[in-house]
Amino acid sequence: MEHIFINERKKEMLVQKYKDMLSAKSVIRQLSEFATARGQEIGYENVFDYSLGNPSVPVPQEFTDRMLHMLATKNPMELHGYSPSLGITSVREKIAASLEQRFGIPYRKEHIFMASGAAGALAHAFRLVTEPGDEILTFAPYFPEYGPYVNLSGAVLKVVPPNTETFQINFPAFEEMLTDKVMAVLINTPNNPSGIVYSTETIQKLTDILKKKSEEYGHDIYLISDEPYREIVFEGVDAPCVSKFYDNTIMCYSFSKSLSLPGERIGYVAINPACKDAEDMVFMCGQISRGIGHNCPPSIIQLAVAEVLDQTADLSVYEKNMNLIYNELVALGFTVVKPGGTFYIFPKALEEDAVAFCQKALKYDLVLVPADSFGAPGFFRMAYCIDTEKVERSLVALRKFVEAEYRK
Amino acid sequence: MEHIFINERKKEMLVQKYKDMLSAKSVIRQLSEFATARGQEIGYENVFDYSLGNPSVPVPQEFTDRMLHMLATKNPMELHGYSPSLGITSVREKIAASLEQRFGIPYRKEHIFMASGAAGALAHAFRLVTEPGDEILTFAPYFPEYGPYVNLSGAVLKVVPPNTETFQINFPAFEEMLTDKVMAVLINTPNNPSGIVYSTETIQKLTDILKKKSEEYGHDIYLISDEPYREIVFEGVDAPCVSKFYDNTIMCYSFSKSLSLPGERIGYVAINPACKDAEDMVFMCGQISRGIGHNCPPSIIQLAVAEVLDQTADLSVYEKNMNLIYNELVALGFTVVKPGGTFYIFPKALEEDAVAFCQKALKYDLVLVPADSFGAPGFFRMAYCIDTEKVERSLVALRKFVEAEYRK
Repeated sequence: MEHIFINERKKEMLVQKYKDMLSAKSVIRQLSEFATARGQEIGYENVFDYSLGNPSVPVPQEFTDRMLHMLATKNPMELHGYSPSLGITSVREKIAASLEQRFGIPYRKEHIFMASGAAGALAHAFRLVTEPGDEILTFAPYFPEYGPYVNLSGAVLKVVPPNTETFQINFPAFEEMLTDKVMAVLINTPNNPSGIVYSTETIQKLTDILKKKSEEYGHDIYLISDEPYREIVFEGVDAPCVSKFYDNTIMCYSFSKSLSLPGERIGYVAINPACKDAEDMVFMCGQISRGIGHNCPPSIIQLAVAEVLDQTADLSVYEKNMNLIYNELVALGFTVVKPGGTFYIFPKALEEDAVAFCQKALKYDLVLVPADSFGAPGFFRMAYCIDTEKVERSLVALRKFVEAEYRK
Repeated sequence: MEHIFINERKKEMLVQKYKDMLSAKSVIRQLSEFATARGQEIGYENVFDYSLGNPSVPVPQEFTDRMLHMLATKNPMELHGYSPSLGITSVREKIAASLEQRFGIPYRKEHIFMASGAAGALAHAFRLVTEPGDEILTFAPYFPEYGPYVNLSGAVLKVVPPNTETFQINFPAFEEMLTDKVMAVLINTPNNPSGIVYSTETIQKLTDILKKKSEEYGHDIYLISDEPYREIVFEGVDAPCVSKFYDNTIMCYSFSKSLSLPGERIGYVAINPACKDAEDMVFMCGQISRGIGHNCPPSIIQLAVAEVLDQTADLSVYEKNMNLIYNELVALGFTVVKPGGTFYIFPKALEEDAVAFCQKALKYDLVLVPADSFGAPGFFRMAYCIDTEKVERSLVALRKFVEAEYRK
């Protein structure tokens, strides 16, 4: 338990770039492995594992029914045949129609590129709009995988420091960093790890700045909107559709969270129809695929998802869990911004060093993730995609932990 | 019909590299589109479409049954949950055991990395062993996608000219091109487009040269063996297991052809256990995935394929078709090497310009692919993964075509 945050692997390897990466083991992965090992000792039901963002509610039954129906009735050569490189046409049509109906933006199949989950979608987006050395800005706190995703594409990720009062955008820092080397700005709202949803005011201000600076620099600045948590927004929260505010928006979507299908790797890129060259950008995605070995999500999953586009898993448990945890955190004196969506909450640790804080929490079988790697040291993340009954028991452990360690 | 081989698209685009690619439309794709359009005129059953390598026999029923069973009985959160980044452990174990039993090489799960089809597997293999600017050699005739696959990874593809007598390796040309800039040699046996299987003698000679040159240059030269047609080998043909001959072999496999699942994007990388750093290379594949947005094949497909590892679709139709076509080609006076496997045959055209030859064939509703893009001008490819009944009717058209155009 003591060495859980220390990286020990060191290897002699082949290609230096990837060799170096082996020595940095993800803290989240280490914690998740700790949780599994501890679960084998005391029963996993007694480990309060808040480490992983793995959905805890099942896919809608209709998805399963559609898969069963297709497998039982469709010609297998058709069902399992090659998908066109941009995605199955009927699937792209249905997604465009669903987006149009939902957001009032005239998406057509020509604006949709099917991708293997959000990671696949982002890999295409970065390569669409950056040459090696170009900068992409994102905002802390941020999903740490953005680092390797962007930097291994050849572009350079720069992180705008957080506004820790609200976890909306830190605009003064953003404007300072938005130089003419920046070709794209990457946002993630609802946000992992903060759980915050960017307000209409934030998106308006952000896109106003992008418009002004695009003009000033004489080149487009693209807005890459990573939206896997789009469907997980809590009651009464203002959750604007980003693409409505800015023509040059590249929406990256994944069904992993909304349909509880993270292992099936299915998502898409939707280019704003108002974006200059929108249709060609979709064709370019097909070319980018050839370079990165992408080649479309699996046919059968594309077809099944297209049948349940306007459904979600029962996501209500996340809001219920959030309220329980938020109220207890506040009662215990934590500084915490109330999440507007996702299944994350992002409180401030009770000591400056969040790593030390999370290390102590392990003694109480509370698996919390220190936020150093999210670009917000001093905070920690709880992924509350777990059973409500377990959340309730964990709050007893949390109170015990806080009282024993910080109220002595 | 007249302009089918002429590229007309030209676009103003975003990132120059991908923009330029839009203007080069694949000849195979154009022909396949012609076949579809012509099919709408005269009925697709009357178009003798030999353009696409899409399997024509169904997946084994057991695959479908296993999928149905899992969907009906398994906990959906488990079934559709995140796969570890190297692949599902039990699936990797089963693949290793199957390879060991089959080839007598001590593969363990630590040597297996699950990939999204052959394209995904190759994308990892190239990045494992080359830095930008390093060379990868392959042999004509070759799968034209190797060009963008390799060149967009940053490495440089060099193509050794063909031995058109046998379509085994042209060794004098190979030895000349195997300079110390070459970090990997990429082979594809059984071969697309020639249908040829490299003999034991060829593989022995190839690997002897690689061993000698690795020593001479003081660095490893990796052998990347792209084996999607491994299971489609005809009676009596010598089809050696490449990995047995050379320690530094990276096997890239796809189930697309053997199980008739091309749309489901499922395959793997198997690093020879005798390869230096074999296990670390698998971990490195996990890191490479982060850079290219790969993230594993879909969970449910991994699990289903693992249940039918030692099965194939009924592949016998391909040999039957091959014999019919080969015999007729010989009778009509074509120069053609008899295929040892795959579902391709690669005859010499009846005039020097294979593009002109294939253009004329279209008048007889014969869709043949000129081999310029395969690195063997003057030849053409027929993909005979179609119904035998259609093959038989096509041979009547072929005879009519040859007699009308070349026996006047």
